[in-house]
Amino acid sequence: MTTENNENILQAPFRVGGITITIVGVGLIGGSFALVSKQKSIAKHVIGVCNREETKQKVLALGLVDEVLPLEEAIKKSDLIYVAIPVDATVPVMQKIMHLVNNQQIVVDAGSTKFVLCDALKNHPMRKRFVATHPMWGTEYSGPEAAVATAFAGRACVICEKDKSDGAAVKMVENIYTNLGMHLVYMEAVAHDTHAAYVSHISHITSFALANTVLEKEKEEDAIFELAGGGFESTVRLAKSNPAMWAPIFMQNRENVLDVLNEHISQLRKFKSALEKENIDYLNELMENANKIKRIIK
Amino acid sequence: MTTENNENILQAPFRVGGITITIVGVGLIGGSFALVSKQKSIAKHVIGVCNREETKQKVLALGLVDEVLPLEEAIKKSDLIYVAIPVDATVPVMQKIMHLVNNQQIVVDAGSTKFVLCDALKNHPMRKRFVATHPMWGTEYSGPEAAVATAFAGRACVICEKDKSDGAAVKMVENIYTNLGMHLVYMEAVAHDTHAAYVSHISHITSFALANTVLEKEKEEDAIFELAGGGFESTVRLAKSNPAMWAPIFMQNRENVLDVLNEHISQLRKFKSALEKENIDYLNELMENANKIKRIIK
Repeated sequence: MTTENNENILQAPFRVGGITITIVGVGLIGGSFALVSKQKSIAKHVIGVCNREETKQKVLALGLVDEVLPLEEAIKKSDLIYVAIPVDATVPVMQKIMHLVNNQQIVVDAGSTKFVLCDALKNHPMRKRFVATHPMWGTEYSGPEAAVATAFAGRACVICEKDKSDGAAVKMVENIYTNLGMHLVYMEAVAHDTHAAYVSHISHITSFALANTVLEKEKEEDAIFELAGGGFESTVRLAKSNPAMWAPIFMQNRENVLDVLNEHISQLRKFKSALEKENIDYLNELMENANKIKRIIK
Repeated sequence: MTTENNENILQAPFRVGGITITIVGVGLIGGSFALVSKQKSIAKHVIGVCNREETKQKVLALGLVDEVLPLEEAIKKSDLIYVAIPVDATVPVMQKIMHLVNNQQIVVDAGSTKFVLCDALKNHPMRKRFVATHPMWGTEYSGPEAAVATAFAGRACVICEKDKSDGAAVKMVENIYTNLGMHLVYMEAVAHDTHAAYVSHISHITSFALANTVLEKEKEEDAIFELAGGGFESTVRLAKSNPAMWAPIFMQNRENVLDVLNEHISQLRKFKSALEKENIDYLNELMENANKIKRIIK
């Protein structure tokens, strides 16, 4: 993993007046990207590509995009195509897009897994036009209504396989994310997926499982509602996340997720053992070790 | 579980000018209670009882209390004694306090477990002067520096075994918590401990275990630091909590905590099985079930 000092990247927009951006998948990430790109004058025109008629009406009504067009027409009018759809749909959609772009256009994806996609496109004749990214921002909400103009700022954006993309294309994408207030981190796709399993995917699984635990054990929903303080709310928050987004992520990153999930179960078993044996020293030791996370997460 | 409409409780302070309160254990909870009681004119004078010389200096320097006195002297001057110390210390300290109070004074505890204490005091000749409470508020920080004047508001406060306390004493305590912006929930001590295991104690264990998982698996601390987005931070936040506070809670509520911990491990195993078998339908089903928490936690 290498990080780049943001000062080395041009802060100014790359073209006076902005570019035309097509957003494929105008949901939490795509819709937020649309909003912020417009707000920061990165885009002068934003086109949405949506599967469903209902979504088309919504993204226009919410003012996320200037117009909605079919994929092929949208690409023709765009400088940059930003793909933010569930990762199981990304490969076929990306292959279609890559087939339609020319040597001036840039294709960016925002998926939470990177290896499957980078691997699928590695020999594509237009590979250099593609920049693989993962802006490490999200909320537990999904769909166009979840898009917010406060997205992205202050978080990391991972750029994968940078050397396989055209230099100027990477520069433009770096420029956009930096203007969004993100700091850039560079990784190989395999390393990205490993790290993402540790610091993002496992949090979602523990939160989903915690919700199921409490829903299973606590038959008095009133009690959850009345008593749940900040602690429970923050640990269970991610359990509201959209299965349609997360199931494909877990499946694509299956081996890494299983690896870290096994470790997590074994860590919980240590707490179980300490309690069963009434071993307060061991219990303290486990918690004191966990406290080390303070060093890393302020 | 029963809840009471706050409108039925007198909102006005119970004595013009406020009362004298002794805080035994001026940390996160006790210190915050001191701050807010003063701010809301519930207390005209706040006395701190601290074990360590270092803490005495700190609580005075932070302005949490007006003076620091030895327990016996402090009680003599007080209308109400508020005990907020780790639950393994509560029983012996409370027994000492109950021996020193008269029939006008009120003793309140704020511990996260209620059965052990209520059981220990059930036959005490002064039992009626004691009101068992659990304000369901906290942060991952501890000690006097963690005390904040924004504490308590908007959260539930559980009052246990209400019928074993003097009616006027309960009324005063209800009055105080209501003035702090809390809503009141009434429970037997046994029920409290069961519910607390579900909605509070398990969240802390999962968070501690998640921190240990990531610290074990993620050898690149830079990666955690760079990549951890809001999701990881919120699920791991409680792992910063103080072992000296939590170990006694887990031990006193051992059976309930073990019960819910076993369920949690079994819920995580379901995710493991879905991933191992690449059963995306099952994976979706597990997450859709977890989504039901939206109904309860907004």
